[in-house]
Amino acid sequence: MQNYKLIMEYDGTDYKGWQKQPGLPTIQGTLEEALARVATVESPLYAAGRTDAGVHARGQVASFLGTLKPPPPRFPAAVNSFLPQGIVVKRCEEVDKGFNARKSAVAREYTYYIHFDHPPSPFDRRFAYHHKGKLDEEAMRRALHSVLGIHDFASFCRVEEGRSTVREVFVADILLGNEVLGIRVKANAFVWMMMRMLCGSLLGVGRGKWSVEHFKEVLEGGDNSLSGPALPPRGLFLERVYY
Amino acid sequence: MQNYKLIMEYDGTDYKGWQKQPGLPTIQGTLEEALARVATVESPLYAAGRTDAGVHARGQVASFLGTLKPPPPRFPAAVNSFLPQGIVVKRCEEVDKGFNARKSAVAREYTYYIHFDHPPSPFDRRFAYHHKGKLDEEAMRRALHSVLGIHDFASFCRVEEGRSTVREVFVADILLGNEVLGIRVKANAFVWMMMRMLCGSLLGVGRGKWSVEHFKEVLEGGDNSLSGPALPPRGLFLERVYY
Repeated sequence: MQNYKLIMEYDGTDYKGWQKQPGLPTIQGTLEEALARVATVESPLYAAGRTDAGVHARGQVASFLGTLKPPPPRFPAAVNSFLPQGIVVKRCEEVDKGFNARKSAVAREYTYYIHFDHPPSPFDRRFAYHHKGKLDEEAMRRALHSVLGIHDFASFCRVEEGRSTVREVFVADILLGNEVLGIRVKANAFVWMMMRMLCGSLLGVGRGKWSVEHFKEVLEGGDNSLSGPALPPRGLFLERVYY
Repeated sequence: MQNYKLIMEYDGTDYKGWQKQPGLPTIQGTLEEALARVATVESPLYAAGRTDAGVHARGQVASFLGTLKPPPPRFPAAVNSFLPQGIVVKRCEEVDKGFNARKSAVAREYTYYIHFDHPPSPFDRRFAYHHKGKLDEEAMRRALHSVLGIHDFASFCRVEEGRSTVREVFVADILLGNEVLGIRVKANAFVWMMMRMLCGSLLGVGRGKWSVEHFKEVLEGGDNSLSGPALPPRGLFLERVYY
């Protein structure tokens, strides 16, 4: 029995999120079924980020203890042959027994994509939120920079009783492409709905409905009823996990 | 009654091509139904490229004579509200009465996308062909350059009795991205299946199964039974039309 780490990509559109739920299509449930064909799994399947329904991943990390039928270099092709096209195992590595994809992670990086100004594109309609009209990306960048460092994200969070909502943000930036804007945040961990509520609030800044100061006040106030609306999951990608 | 030009994007995955066919989902049929809600159309609907089933467009051009309810600047939003998300009218312009989207076009540009080497990506599985393994893009580029100029493309064409298969290619190049390769060809016009058979043959060169010389011999030989297999439509985009 060894410990294995998998690096995965998935299109979350057709799944009810990472976490297994009886009778529903989930990433974890689908992956476990495929793993059973090419490995003996003897522990729970851990994931660095328990992505919500409709959220995508370009660099999700999962781990489990068990025995593989094909060795790690040939394992991705083997397990992919039992997975639907929307879920892909990119790499498999044998890791130290103490490694746990979730608990060992020191940071996660998410990006939220907003397609703006032009009519919605038929090519990224599954993978971006569409905003009609221009956005003031400089104001968005200034507001976003205020989340850097240690903050209580209670304002940008669905309440989960008794859990700390303090997180540390290491990187927060706006990436600007052709008609598309990416909001990238790297933090030690994310509270529930943090990216989607944070990005909904930033959109208020980008549209000129919120001042940068107002964004900072909402962040610091800790009242999630003042947050902008959570943006839909289709624009959100778990990009990378750091160990 | 005026003459109007529409610039369109579409995800061809769920359609049986541009051309209207009774009882089947087509781009033309779907667009005509939406146009009927916001315009009076008094001529056939012409298109620069009659894309096949499953082929996409980033810059298809259509034209028709008629009367619009909203004026051209507001027309795209109006017609898009009656179109499914996979079909988008990006621009509408009033044009000279003599303009015909098909007959006035002096060149069309198509790109075929091949995702290679790494496992298939869940994000471009609708929009690229996946080739497992590396490709010799330098050899592909050299072979592709041999189609520049005026050639008879009978070798890279499904036979259509009595029609000329001579076309002039203005631009032919390989675009190299991260794990993706685009085969771009701009020509006065394209014979049926030309891009997909040409790209299937170039793939033979990229994989090292065909020499560049063999590619040239097949091109010049005019025997379509010697062509590489036609690649699937999902990698093909009508990028732009020139007038």
